[in-house]
Parts: sequence; C-alpha cells; structure tokens
Amino acid sequence: MNAIILSVGDELTSGLTVNTNAAWLAQQLMEIGIETAAHITVGDKQGVIEFAIREAIRRAQLILISGGLGPTEDDVTREALAAALGEELVRDETALAQLRQWFASKGRPMSASNERQAMRPASAICLENSAGTAPGLRAVVGDQLIFVMPGVPKEMKVMFARAILPELKQRAGEQITLVTKINTFGHGESVVGEKIRDLMLRGSIPGVGTTVHDGIVSVRIYAAGTRSVAEELTRKTAAVIRQRLGPIIFGEGDDTLELAVGKLLAEKKQTVATAESCTGGMIAEMLTNISGSSTYVDRAWVTYANAAKVEEIGVPAELIAKHGAVSEEVCKLMAEGARRHARTDWAISTTGIAGPGGGSDEKPVGLVWIGLAGENETATRRFIFPGDRFGIRQRAAQMGLALLRWKMMGAGGVI
Amino acid sequence: MNAIILSVGDELTSGLTVNTNAAWLAQQLMEIGIETAAHITVGDKQGVIEFAIREAIRRAQLILISGGLGPTEDDVTREALAAALGEELVRDETALAQLRQWFASKGRPMSASNERQAMRPASAICLENSAGTAPGLRAVVGDQLIFVMPGVPKEMKVMFARAILPELKQRAGEQITLVTKINTFGHGESVVGEKIRDLMLRGSIPGVGTTVHDGIVSVRIYAAGTRSVAEELTRKTAAVIRQRLGPIIFGEGDDTLELAVGKLLAEKKQTVATAESCTGGMIAEMLTNISGSSTYVDRAWVTYANAAKVEEIGVPAELIAKHGAVSEEVCKLMAEGARRHARTDWAISTTGIAGPGGGSDEKPVGLVWIGLAGENETATRRFIFPGDRFGIRQRAAQMGLALLRWKMMGAGGVI
Repeated sequence: MNAIILSVGDELTSGLTVNTNAAWLAQQLMEIGIETAAHITVGDKQGVIEFAIREAIRRAQLILISGGLGPTEDDVTREALAAALGEELVRDETALAQLRQWFASKGRPMSASNERQAMRPASAICLENSAGTAPGLRAVVGDQLIFVMPGVPKEMKVMFARAILPELKQRAGEQITLVTKINTFGHGESVVGEKIRDLMLRGSIPGVGTTVHDGIVSVRIYAAGTRSVAEELTRKTAAVIRQRLGPIIFGEGDDTLELAVGKLLAEKKQTVATAESCTGGMIAEMLTNISGSSTYVDRAWVTYANAAKVEEIGVPAELIAKHGAVSEEVCKLMAEGARRHARTDWAISTTGIAGPGGGSDEKPVGLVWIGLAGENETATRRFIFPGDRFGIRQRAAQMGLALLRWKMMGAGGVI
Repeated sequence: MNAIILSVGDELTSGLTVNTNAAWLAQQLMEIGIETAAHITVGDKQGVIEFAIREAIRRAQLILISGGLGPTEDDVTREALAAALGEELVRDETALAQLRQWFASKGRPMSASNERQAMRPASAICLENSAGTAPGLRAVVGDQLIFVMPGVPKEMKVMFARAILPELKQRAGEQITLVTKINTFGHGESVVGEKIRDLMLRGSIPGVGTTVHDGIVSVRIYAAGTRSVAEELTRKTAAVIRQRLGPIIFGEGDDTLELAVGKLLAEKKQTVATAESCTGGMIAEMLTNISGSSTYVDRAWVTYANAAKVEEIGVPAELIAKHGAVSEEVCKLMAEGARRHARTDWAISTTGIAGPGGGSDEKPVGLVWIGLAGENETATRRFIFPGDRFGIRQRAAQMGLALLRWKMMGAGGVI
C-alpha cells in the first residue's frame, strides 16, 4: 500500500506556516508499513485541490488530505473532493447534530457558516472531530481510500488516531518498517558513506541512508517486514555498521554527544571542567543540558580575554604575549589550568578564530586549537572547521566532547 | 510568474525530517512577488524525481528543487534532471576544480564519490556552493527556469541568496510583498495578540500575524503592492505596533536578543560578565556568538556546584548553607561576585531548577532566580518558566539578557 499526503492551505504554499502535518502523518504511515510516495501542498483554490486529488487517485492507494475544512469562504476542500469524485455535496444530519451539540457544550452560538461543515460528498461519510468543529471525511474510490482531516495539527492528530489509524492498521497487515538511527560524529557524510557504500546501494535490504544535521552524521536503517523480520534485519545491519564505523558512533535515535560523554563520566565517576575561549561556554552549556550533569560538572570558565586566561586559570601572560592566544601552547595551559583549578579528572579547552573577522593567512577563520588535559598527559589538536561563526563554534564544541569521549574509551587515532 | 518547489529526499517523504526548506523558499519568493502554486516532495528515486520535474515544467515558470545533490549513491537529482531534460551528464571542470579547492582548503581528502558532484546536465550550468561541497544547477527550458540546490538548509539558503535570488529579482515585476518581522521577548503570543488584535483581523491591509519560536514572539507585517506602496503600508503599521508593544520589541528580521544587548553594550562602551548555575553557560554562549563581543565580554563563570560559587566568585558558604543554592540571596551575591571579580559594568546570574528532577513544592521545576548587578544596585527576579529542561534554561538565559537590556534602556516594569 502506498500513500500520497495532500496538504491544503495558502499559509502553507506561501511558507508562512511550516508543514509539520505531512511529516507527522508520513511517520505514522511508515510505522504500519505504508510507504508515502509524495507530499503535495496546494493553496486554497478549489480547482487546484480538485486537480491534485484526481492526480493522487491515479497514483496512490491511500490519500490523506488535511486542511480546508473550516467554516470560512476560503475553505473549499469539501467542494474540491466532491468535484473530484463527480458527486454533489449533501447535508449530513448526524454531523450537523454533532456540530450543534459541540457549540452548545461550549455555550457558544453556532453561525450559519458552520453549517457548511456538515456537508459531505454524497458517497462519503463524516468523521467525528472530538477536538474542534470541522468533521473529517472518508471516501472510497474502487479499492482506494481517501481521508480528509482538519489542518489544525491537534485536531488532525486526534482524528487520525481515532478514526483513521485503526482501519489502516487492519488493511496494512503485519508489515511494518522499523527505522533505526545511528548517530556519528567525527567524519563528514561522504567519508561515512564511503565506509558503508555497499549497504547504501539502491535496492539493498534493509535500506540504509545517511543524513547530516548540525555536524552530526546519522545513518538510518529502514527494515521492512513483519516485526520479527524487521528486527532481525536491523540487528544484522546495525552490527555491520557498528563494526565499520567504530568509535565515531556515539548513540542511537535522539542520543546526543553530550549524553554519551555524560554517561561515560557518570559510569567512571569522573569529572570534567572547561576553559573556553572561542566556544564561549557552549561546551559547558551542552554538558549541563543533561539532567544529572551536576555529578560530573562542577564549574567552567569562559576565558574570552587574555586577562581572564591569566587571572582565572593561571595561563602565564608571557606565554600569551609570545605565542598569541590562539596557539597550541596557550591551549595546553588553558586545559591544564582548568583541570588544576577545578580539581577534575579532565578539562577541555578551546581557543580559535570563530570569525567572521580576525582571520589571517597564518591563523585563518575556522582555526581552533582544542586541548584535553587528563591525569597523565595533555593532548592538543589543531582543526580548521568550515561554516559560519555559529557552525565553527558548534563544531569545535562537539569535537571537544568527542575527543574526551574517545580518550575515555581508549580509542586513539579516530580522526 | 508562478513557482513550484520540489523537495527531494526519503527523509522528507518518510517524515523523519520536517521540510523547512520549502517554506523558507516560498517566503523568499513571496517577498519578490512570485507566487508558489505548489510544494511537491518526493523520495530519492530517479524515476519519480524525473516525473515530478516533467510535471512541474508543464505547470510553472519557475521550479526550485532542493536535495539529492550529495555524494552518495542515493543522491540522484542530478541524474533525474538530466533525464527530464533529455540530456547526458557531463563533467564540469570548473566545478571539479572548486570541489578540489574546497577539500584542499579544509585539509581534507576528497573521495572519489565527491567527483560525481561535479557532473551536470549538458545544457545546465553549475552554481557555486560556498557553504559545502555540492554545486547547484541552473537549467533553462524555453522561458522556464529550473534551479537545483543542496538539501542542507544552510547550504541551500546561501546558494539561493547568492546565485539565484538576484536573477529572480530581475525577472519578477514591480509587485512585491514586503514581509517585515518584528521580534519581541517578554510576553506570550496571546498577550501580544490581544494588544494588536484589531490589526490582525482577516482581510486587514496590510496583513498582520504572530508566530512564536523558541520563546521569541514575532509579529509579521505582509504588505503587498509596488515597493513604495508596500513600504508606506509597512511603515504606518510598524509604527502602531511599536507604540503598542514598546520595549518588549528588541529587533527586526533575524535580529536576536544577544545582538540587541551587544549593540547596547558596545554603544555605551560597557561590559558584562555572567555567573551561571542552571543556565550552564548559555548566556555566555549567546553573548559571544555575536562577532565583536570581545569588546564587552571578558570572562564568565559556570558555577554549577556550591563549591564553585564559593571559590570562584566569593559567595559565602554559610549563605548557601542557610538559604540553599536556589535562593534570592545566593543569586544576588553571585551577580555581585561576578561583577566584582570580572571588574565589569554589569553581571548576570542565574540559579534555578531546570529539571526534570530536583523539584519540590517550595522550589518547583522551572523556578529560576535571575540576578542583575550594576554600579548602583543589584536586582533579583523570581520566575517560574514552563517547558522541558532545555526550554527552561533557554527562557532563563533569554530573560537574563532581556533584563539587562531593559535596565540599560531605563525601561522599568516591562514585565
């Protein structure tokens, strides 16, 4: 069974509202094994909606429509569906009674325009809206199903769950698609793709794909079948991916780098401090966004100015004068100073040129030194990160956390 | 001129990623008077993409495509466009040279799969990607224009602004829709809406609407007409909005709270430090994300543990023992201690319960004390912020900046 999701509304085509309904519906369908072939979004024009419905009927077994069921003149999805089906609109007395009851229960008067909401194409049935006024619609063309829901996300979701999902589940049978997301940090999408290229070939079973978001490259496994088949496919492929990608994998699903680092620190009962220059507190902010981080974060410094580096964590002023604040030497002593002052097991330091100004041939925008001080040694690494100011800072903060994680795991030479 | 926006990616059709590109592009087009007739989203299947492109060519003068230009096997938009145009793919030597240069400048090896990214349909030209590797494409069919951009939003936006928008502006006529976004912080969307309810009535000219994103309530004005008409409509309505909303307005367009605060600090040649407990460095991170912030940020402390509050900024241990770390007294001395140690004009402090654990009847999750120390006095304010851990921390950090801004503006009693 495949589906087309049709969203209706001028606020969507004009971009004033981001279409979140379509993504939500597609996820619901995927979980019960129904593939969404396309999302179509059109404005509040009857002819255009009608055309889109006709086209969808030619291409998909299931058509989910949301939007355009309201009481106002510019809500015309009802009329468009009737036209696409070649039917008249008729009044649905049950729906009208429910509408009247809804208004009565809220103690509000029902306007004449609301009566339009009780109209339906002759062969369709109305679906009750328990969260608002607009009834939904269900129509059948041959063995194809068409559902129309309100555009308001809350109303749409309740109606989908109560009046539509049960029927779809019955039709869809036992086939599901299990989606597993494996998150990596350290290599670009192309390098990750190279390492699992054979798994990503078109038509591979299960399907494997990569996406990148805020520097995190995620590998997704799409395993279709009965639940047990899908789980077995996922298990085998995930094992291969884990073996190929190794320590750049830090978690699954919504797991973040800071969560992975936090778990390691908590497990080993170790602590970390930061002395941040170019990242300006971002590493500390990330670490402390994890609930329970107070067991491993005690304090952190943003040492933005040279004087702060000298006064707060004891970097010698002469050293800064000699090598410059963005240097391996200063980065090393920042990490060591933070570790010493905070009396932690670890300390991360950053110093770099976040831009857009301040770069030179020798020290270009994107240059960041990252230091990691531990009990036995202090490592320093030089990076040139791409992107804008925020991107450079974010990549530097993530890399600081990643370097700590790899060190704690004993994974040397990862990148 | 009308447009179809075609988004490509299995992550979009499956609903794993919400399609924000299409809305962003539609808004950009609206501003130059180009109406978007439809958004189409299809998966990474060459035949389906090709079909969608052919259909779009039949219906729109402008086709904006994003996604499917990456280096991996499942990126096939390039091939689909060539097929839709009935052309071969050829190697673009200039694009290849730019790709090589991009990798060289980052000191990273270029994999063989990246070379695919320099292929283009024979009649198309490549568009430089200044934010990533995938070059874009521009093709012409009759008097219709087709542009292909990367799916990564940041890369897509830069490419659209630099390589596409200028040409579209030339083509578009004199009718534009001027969209002006006025950003506020301090009141909820419903309170803001009440104050400008008459401007927001359906059919009002110009149109006015509110949106909320990450705690920032924005008021948008949509003024259609020739540029001079649209500007005049906007000017008049913006003046009314400014008068009604007053100092909760901190900027326009992409302006952020930290930019507004930074401008004030730079103008007055004043400086700020932070001592952050529950916000964990977020205020410092926000302040330093502004280029040039080194003129007003010198250092900041994350004093997460009690010992850190005592040792780093001199909060008396007895005071913490007596009132608890989350208390007005400790908040006040944190701000004063930070100001004294950093020798700044201002200091902001936060201490609270970000949750999800750690709340009590007396000190519930969401409770945050925010302190603001200045030359003459230290103000403290108690808030209970809604939301999850991240939301509470973000609201607290924003409020810290807003309180400083209002104080510096001499705007008392804003909220």
